[in-house]
Amino acid sequence: MRRVITLTTDFGLEDGYVGTVKGVILGINPDATLVDICHSIGPQDISQAAFVIGTSYRFFPPGTIHIVAVDPGVGGERRALAMETPAGTFVAPDNGVLSWAVRDRLGGARELSACGKQPIRGSQIRAVSLSNPRYWLAELSRTFHARDVFGPVAAHLSLGVPLDDLGEDVDEISALSLPCPQRRPDGTIVGHVIHVDRFGNLITDLAWADVAPSAGEPIFEIAGYRVVGLSRYYAERPGLLALVGSSGNVEIAFSGGSAAGKLRAGKGATVVMRWIV
Amino acid sequence: MRRVITLTTDFGLEDGYVGTVKGVILGINPDATLVDICHSIGPQDISQAAFVIGTSYRFFPPGTIHIVAVDPGVGGERRALAMETPAGTFVAPDNGVLSWAVRDRLGGARELSACGKQPIRGSQIRAVSLSNPRYWLAELSRTFHARDVFGPVAAHLSLGVPLDDLGEDVDEISALSLPCPQRRPDGTIVGHVIHVDRFGNLITDLAWADVAPSAGEPIFEIAGYRVVGLSRYYAERPGLLALVGSSGNVEIAFSGGSAAGKLRAGKGATVVMRWIV
Amino acid sequence: MRRVITLTTDFGLEDGYVGTVKGVILGINPDATLVDICHSIGPQDISQAAFVIGTSYRFFPPGTIHIVAVDPGVGGERRALAMETPAGTFVAPDNGVLSWAVRDRLGGARELSACGKQPIRGSQIRAVSLSNPRYWLAELSRTFHARDVFGPVAAHLSLGVPLDDLGEDVDEISALSLPCPQRRPDGTIVGHVIHVDRFGNLITDLAWADVAPSAGEPIFEIAGYRVVGLSRYYAERPGLLALVGSSGNVEIAFSGGSAAGKLRAGKGATVVMRWIV
Repeated sequence: MRRVITLTTDFGLEDGYVGTVKGVILGINPDATLVDICHSIGPQDISQAAFVIGTSYRFFPPGTIHIVAVDPGVGGERRALAMETPAGTFVAPDNGVLSWAVRDRLGGARELSACGKQPIRGSQIRAVSLSNPRYWLAELSRTFHARDVFGPVAAHLSLGVPLDDLGEDVDEISALSLPCPQRRPDGTIVGHVIHVDRFGNLITDLAWADVAPSAGEPIFEIAGYRVVGLSRYYAERPGLLALVGSSGNVEIAFSGGSAAGKLRAGKGATVVMRWIV
Repeated sequence: MRRVITLTTDFGLEDGYVGTVKGVILGINPDATLVDICHSIGPQDISQAAFVIGTSYRFFPPGTIHIVAVDPGVGGERRALAMETPAGTFVAPDNGVLSWAVRDRLGGARELSACGKQPIRGSQIRAVSLSNPRYWLAELSRTFHARDVFGPVAAHLSLGVPLDDLGEDVDEISALSLPCPQRRPDGTIVGHVIHVDRFGNLITDLAWADVAPSAGEPIFEIAGYRVVGLSRYYAERPGLLALVGSSGNVEIAFSGGSAAGKLRAGKGATVVMRWIV
Repeated sequence: MRRVITLTTDFGLEDGYVGTVKGVILGINPDATLVDICHSIGPQDISQAAFVIGTSYRFFPPGTIHIVAVDPGVGGERRALAMETPAGTFVAPDNGVLSWAVRDRLGGARELSACGKQPIRGSQIRAVSLSNPRYWLAELSRTFHARDVFGPVAAHLSLGVPLDDLGEDVDEISALSLPCPQRRPDGTIVGHVIHVDRFGNLITDLAWADVAPSAGEPIFEIAGYRVVGLSRYYAERPGLLALVGSSGNVEIAFSGGSAAGKLRAGKGATVVMRWIV
């Protein structure tokens, strides 16, 4: 069966780890279409992995199976999951790497930001704990579950094995406390940089919904700099600018250069937004 | 349909951008065969992208579709193109990234080096401006056309959609002023380093045709160093050497090391060639 | 035919070299499934390539064809090989890049560590020297055999061309002198770090067989540090630890960080193992 299986890991590209997982998958389903989403997640950076998969999965066909292997607790007590949603299936440790995807699927989203465990009963999400060794490699290590568990399970899912065969139902899923803009009494909104991309664009948690409603022009303050107005695209004007980027979030960018470099700002930096009226 | 679609971008490997484009393509044509050519093009380095795709495309099956997404003007006034040649089809912004491929196809090549716009009427090249939104993603951003336009268009092309359906015919294509060796009155030729590869090999714009005609032995001067004669392969002798590399161009190399490092020379450096007779 | 072809090279990701090889392969067998194992092998680092392919190939389907293109002697006198084993077929220069794979297949393994040439008569291994140009690209360079020889040969193998058609039988294969633990009269074992992975884990040549037989608890000394006992997984305890990793070898790791960084130790470092009884 020609289904897509994606990989998001912190394995890097200097070792044979990613290739090994692919070899295992193709041994089970030779017709799987393998797609790398990212292997340069910082070692054990669950939050970065959650962001990268959370902004990518929507663009894949709904039958796609996404392996997310950033797994500092591998071999210990943490559960492993297969999670089915209308927009894709995920195979991952239950450590928060699915936070953005889960938040999407649980709707409203922002009010979820403080919780550690997300109940999924009655939602669009179904998940099982991976406990049935029949769908793992025969020999199980305690250090490389992408190869021994996630890969094989994803391959079997791609062949049509039903979720229920993989293990028992799960009621809640671990989620990170995702950053979330704060609205102050004076009407300003305090957002945060949640990701810096390859171009040095500072991607924030401010969404289109935050900047759209006002009739006025937004002003953004970050790292001592001020950006007035929203641009529509990167080259629209020279220097520092703000726009709603491809993820639907506000980005601070620098035309022809790196905003992160110019502002010496990174993940976690604060962005204060107000309006000229 | 099992056609090859390649990707050459400046997206890097730290984000989900490349994977996202692939997800979109596979949603339209699940049987496309996706091949990465390069995602480490310097941010917005049109000239590097033009070189990399220009030296790679010839080795793919003629039905291949090449996406080249290095696009500093994304979302602005620049046109986007689909360009068909007997040696492959290209989907890219009209900003010069196709310069080497266009020059190849327009024959003679070297005399084209100074022009900004290349007329293509009556040549092997046909191109259209991508203006028909029917073949784009339903929701169009102004910051990520690889995902919203190039990817979908390439996927539709791979399914057999004819070029004419994508937009209106184009008469000329933007081209960079490509470096070109200069012949001096005294018979020496002044070439340039146009690319430094991963091994530190200095690839020049001097071609086989420049070094072959002479009965004598060529001497190359670069960065204060002198290389006498042409070697046939990298390990033929120790230290600094010159050879005609796999792209058909003269390379300055350092056996078992990096010529770029030894000579502290890079892209744009001058190479003077003369003959011992 | 839908067979897997893998690539392990030192080509890096900044050029079009890897893509070019894939284009050539797909021109010969459009149905080949291409998998990257690693392209970040240090330039001309035969020993690293041998380790990476040697620890990965076993996890691929037995019909897989592995191209290993780390080839400082390209274009010179060194032979090129196609080598068939029950666990996979390899296409590579005969320069030692297949050492780990060969050692695996020749059984006993450790006693082989000192030899330069491995006789293969009567073993599970069959190999031929690539001498039949019919299965190469029409135009042969002396600098890029992955494109002109290894890629095409692998593609033809994937279509069912028998090994014998590619060239004449070979009696012995070049092998590196692989590191091997030394047993001292006092019962301690001196091992070596043979690879540092992306996480900074120090992978040694000490195998499960070295640590398992004792009833006591092993102690490892490396770079002035001492690790007592074997952990089962990385997060089992904080700080420095030792465990048998996914390759079956002892690794020195640092929970939540990099052992290589903490210990300032790298490839070649000595690990002394003894037992508390």
